[in-house]
Amino acid sequence: MNYPKTVQLIDVGPRDGLQNEKQTVPADIKIRLIEMLEAAGIRKLEATSFVSPKWVPQMGDNAEVMGGLKRRSDVCYSVLTPNMKGFEAALPFRPDEVVIFGAASEAFSQKNINCSIAESIERFAPVAAAAKQHGIKVRGVISCTVGCPYEGDIAPEKVAYVTKLMRDIGAEHIGIADTIGVGTPLKIQRALEAALQYVDLDHLSGHFHDTYGQALANTLAALQLGVWQFDTSVAGLGGCPYAKGATGNVATEDVVYMLHGMGIDTGIDLDKLIDAGQMISDFLGRPSPSRVARAVLNKRQAA
Amino acid sequence: MNYPKTVQLIDVGPRDGLQNEKQTVPADIKIRLIEMLEAAGIRKLEATSFVSPKWVPQMGDNAEVMGGLKRRSDVCYSVLTPNMKGFEAALPFRPDEVVIFGAASEAFSQKNINCSIAESIERFAPVAAAAKQHGIKVRGVISCTVGCPYEGDIAPEKVAYVTKLMRDIGAEHIGIADTIGVGTPLKIQRALEAALQYVDLDHLSGHFHDTYGQALANTLAALQLGVWQFDTSVAGLGGCPYAKGATGNVATEDVVYMLHGMGIDTGIDLDKLIDAGQMISDFLGRPSPSRVARAVLNKRQAA
Repeated sequence: MNYPKTVQLIDVGPRDGLQNEKQTVPADIKIRLIEMLEAAGIRKLEATSFVSPKWVPQMGDNAEVMGGLKRRSDVCYSVLTPNMKGFEAALPFRPDEVVIFGAASEAFSQKNINCSIAESIERFAPVAAAAKQHGIKVRGVISCTVGCPYEGDIAPEKVAYVTKLMRDIGAEHIGIADTIGVGTPLKIQRALEAALQYVDLDHLSGHFHDTYGQALANTLAALQLGVWQFDTSVAGLGGCPYAKGATGNVATEDVVYMLHGMGIDTGIDLDKLIDAGQMISDFLGRPSPSRVARAVLNKRQAA
Repeated sequence: MNYPKTVQLIDVGPRDGLQNEKQTVPADIKIRLIEMLEAAGIRKLEATSFVSPKWVPQMGDNAEVMGGLKRRSDVCYSVLTPNMKGFEAALPFRPDEVVIFGAASEAFSQKNINCSIAESIERFAPVAAAAKQHGIKVRGVISCTVGCPYEGDIAPEKVAYVTKLMRDIGAEHIGIADTIGVGTPLKIQRALEAALQYVDLDHLSGHFHDTYGQALANTLAALQLGVWQFDTSVAGLGGCPYAKGATGNVATEDVVYMLHGMGIDTGIDLDKLIDAGQMISDFLGRPSPSRVARAVLNKRQAA
């Protein structure tokens, strides 16, 4: 088995994570979290969303966060810009990458962003074009690539179809997300292989949720296809497993532990990463759902 | 990749699980748990231990449990018998299998059972011989096959060495346990491959802990070697992740979900299994650490 020698983790905690936590976190804590992630070796992260604060109040401080960050030249800062209004608001802050977020499920697209898949692509096209014009990278994330809460199983053909649409409008990089965490290793491989018809391994990432505890097994299955970029969320931000309707982003800590145990380099210092996760978990007043964080913190306490 | 078509799960919850829970569970609840596991399709389980109640008060009711069970002819009932005294106490109950429990780490063997590896094998030898004489199967479980709390990393050669010793005294089946859950997929494969020098795939099982969240990824890695028998513990019994020093047996529910999602048959009804886990979790007064149980129970509540 040929595993990638190096893996890049894109920490989505500050954006995808905190956007899905009930508690709103002030900008200075978000900035501190980002700085602690950088200190731990994270080199790509989702910093914030440029979306209506009416819909997503947790990200209403996007300008404050982007304006307050001491940007590092070796870190790629992504922001979510679902439409031109969001893109125009983000542009003054010169994000390194913008994320557009579609779905492989028609029903989910309708319920989540109120339009069909085809319509969502039409809405994203000018964003992608404008980003290109300004030298900003475009990442297209496709949600519900394995299962959908409304449609059930999603055919890999649907993933290939949306990947192609995203590529056609200029998204260089495609993220394959198992939004409700129902995927298991072979289904994840089928979804990734479908995307690989239209994008190469250097422009593909996996985004797995731990709702059913499958995220690490799915990550292993993805690595076996050569996938080497993954979205993960420090302290599993974005879905507390103790809460009903948990979304359950996989914890960065757990993925790092597995990768390092396999001799795969991430550039990340696990202890410093656990410190970052502990800081935000303390702020949120709840234990981290990361099993690695829990085990390491227990060991630290015992020592 | 050739995956096994069928996997047998050995539910160790009633023995290994409840033995490591703080709270002592009365015999009638243990029997009810076993019956619910059987109703869910479990066909092999660890029922109890025949050990000194001074050391393991949780299993002091072994005779009551074994005497009270309505035994099924299609279920294999294993009991732990660490020495001749335990074997003799177990014999009247005609267990289908006895388990002897050694270690691949000298330090762990000394700390856990107060003797060297070689001495432990001498102690097990008459148990294995007596079991054979009575037509009872012998399973040798080797703990700390990847890492040890005292020695750190364990060399695969050590696993091969103890496997051979166990086989030499008559253990037909060998269990490879990652007792402290530090293993990651490639290390687990190395430990299993070491054991496979002396035992074939039909007489080998994996026993993984979720302390660092790695158990499903490790199970996937084991499946890829052709391993098709695994110890798992309903409701993750035997180490609550909320407690300090958690041992963290992997939850049977989580493994079943992955296997079924991969099209691998287990003969288990996941919903009934979750009911069994819920019964014992309710009795213990704590939520199940199984992510699958949590997600399914959330869905049931929402429906």
